[in-house]
Amino acid sequence: MKAAFYEGDKKIRIGECTCIEPEDNEVQIKVSYAGICGTDLHIYLGHMDKRVKFPQIMGHEMSGVVHALGGEVKHIAVGDRVTVMPLDPCGKCQACLSGHSHICKNLKFLGIETPGAFQTYWTVPAFAVFPIPDQLPMEHGALIEPLAVACHDVRIGDVKKGEYAVVLGGGPIGTLIALVAKEAGARVLVSEINPFRLELLKELGMDTINPKEKDLVEYVNLQTQGTGADVVFEVTSSATGAEVMTQLPRTRGRIVVVAIFSQPPKVDLHRFFWRELKLLGARVYEREDFEKAIQLAAAGKLPLDRVISEIYPLEDLEKGFKQMESGGQAMKILLSCSR
Amino acid sequence: MKAAFYEGDKKIRIGECTCIEPEDNEVQIKVSYAGICGTDLHIYLGHMDKRVKFPQIMGHEMSGVVHALGGEVKHIAVGDRVTVMPLDPCGKCQACLSGHSHICKNLKFLGIETPGAFQTYWTVPAFAVFPIPDQLPMEHGALIEPLAVACHDVRIGDVKKGEYAVVLGGGPIGTLIALVAKEAGARVLVSEINPFRLELLKELGMDTINPKEKDLVEYVNLQTQGTGADVVFEVTSSATGAEVMTQLPRTRGRIVVVAIFSQPPKVDLHRFFWRELKLLGARVYEREDFEKAIQLAAAGKLPLDRVISEIYPLEDLEKGFKQMESGGQAMKILLSCSR
Ligand SMILES: [Zn+2]
Ligand SMILES: [Zn+2]
Ligand SMILES: [Zn+2]
Ligand SMILES: [Zn+2]
Repeated sequence: MKAAFYEGDKKIRIGECTCIEPEDNEVQIKVSYAGICGTDLHIYLGHMDKRVKFPQIMGHEMSGVVHALGGEVKHIAVGDRVTVMPLDPCGKCQACLSGHSHICKNLKFLGIETPGAFQTYWTVPAFAVFPIPDQLPMEHGALIEPLAVACHDVRIGDVKKGEYAVVLGGGPIGTLIALVAKEAGARVLVSEINPFRLELLKELGMDTINPKEKDLVEYVNLQTQGTGADVVFEVTSSATGAEVMTQLPRTRGRIVVVAIFSQPPKVDLHRFFWRELKLLGARVYEREDFEKAIQLAAAGKLPLDRVISEIYPLEDLEKGFKQMESGGQAMKILLSCSR
Repeated sequence: MKAAFYEGDKKIRIGECTCIEPEDNEVQIKVSYAGICGTDLHIYLGHMDKRVKFPQIMGHEMSGVVHALGGEVKHIAVGDRVTVMPLDPCGKCQACLSGHSHICKNLKFLGIETPGAFQTYWTVPAFAVFPIPDQLPMEHGALIEPLAVACHDVRIGDVKKGEYAVVLGGGPIGTLIALVAKEAGARVLVSEINPFRLELLKELGMDTINPKEKDLVEYVNLQTQGTGADVVFEVTSSATGAEVMTQLPRTRGRIVVVAIFSQPPKVDLHRFFWRELKLLGARVYEREDFEKAIQLAAAGKLPLDRVISEIYPLEDLEKGFKQMESGGQAMKILLSCSR
């Protein structure tokens, strides 16, 4: 019954924590693995101090086993292997009423606005709990949440068989997008500058390019007989990403904005007009994306083992953050929370 | 048999010109009226000297009567009242092959890459000629081309009955978009700063706002119970337009980029992510938009008379440009070309 507490100013304390007994509509999960997300790194670096409460237990990518339940929970039983879709929407705003509660105006994100999964026992609303099939390794279960992000992005981008897709940025989300787009039948190119990630992407069978070494626009035109890409995923949140994303698509091509831009970059709106491009914002996932992610992972076709670059004990959360911060000799780092 | 020639450096010469006899697949039209477009103004101001040939006959918004035809023209007869869709696509590029020849990579625009309608007799490819119904006044026939732009924009924006639409910029195109969106059943707000245009828009029954006098975002939120607009048309090509366009739409709302931005403005990509917005570039029109424009204009439901602010003889083209340049005590100016 331990937890990792963020105490502000890059301080993490590992300590005892009290179990929260599940209420009528809640589920208490013994956490097996929890992934460290870029968002957790942002919290650790102090960028989200206004959104979290101190001390904050972070973490929202996880797998675990149901330990206890409230009396009204029907779809889950003690002992079930599960993962969590960490969204708690209000149910009343226009987004919720039109069936898109993942972009609820008053959305609470479990692990940011509430305590998260970096602890032994995590208690969450029952509607957030998804069972996972027996054949899915618990390690892969902790990848379902970011994989659902990728499924949502690929669905918003409407990737079709035989299309040419470019993913700008080959971190964990970019890599998962590339894998899901490839599984959907697309030819995929990943643009990335980090040598460690480039190497890994190549081993995953991806076509890759380092845009500092080779002209990305020229390469995409060459690969597409001068036509351009069908769809581009912007996952870098960089000014150069925002610039190149409009240069790559074919006429009527699509651009999916996955990255979180803290500053408005310059965007070539003329190109949107000239080629009738579409720009599509994509945020988290909907239930169908979560179900798709579970189904894809359980089918065993994605090389998810290779996406997990290390598994540390919960106590080493800070080591994980430092590794991510220092420029990424890492892809996805998992924490083992019940040992 | 006169024409207005652009000779560079803001020089217009009115002079005699030779009729071009129609080839097998061409139609020679006696031009009744021709509208002055913002693009013509750009040419006059020297912004497009690389695209035009000297001396250039401009003009691409027109109505007229068929005067002569080539032997292979079947769908049109001498004496027919017609208008022209001024696009000449290559038929071979990816856009053409996928049925979107209006964004052809090698598109020639009649009146820019070829001689235009500011003359007595205009010879054009037969496929560009559309008959117009008898009940459509010739003056309104000259508005079909910009009205088709508006029909295309409203179609790309997928405007539905009961939706709330905001048009940023109330010049001729913005006004026509507002009229077409209203005809499609939307509630329409036009944002404009020019008092002459604001007054005219009010007389056309539009809700209007001067964003220099009133907070536009606040007003739209008030009108939509805090939800935001369903669709926003950016027709200002200004940095402030590019900024406010992302603040107005509801979650999953649409933004249609109609304006031609010569410089990439800053665009709040975070808002696209957060609200899952869509940005849609829209350029000219397709045949169905031209047909829709003719049908709408012929039905007589749009107050097109009011959109025409003056009709000058062809000789007064320069006067028209000066009036447009001086800041717009004008909406659409037509030239009478056959008198
Ligand atoms: Zn995450
Ligand atoms: Zn809500
Ligand atoms: Zn025009
Ligand atoms: Zn073409």
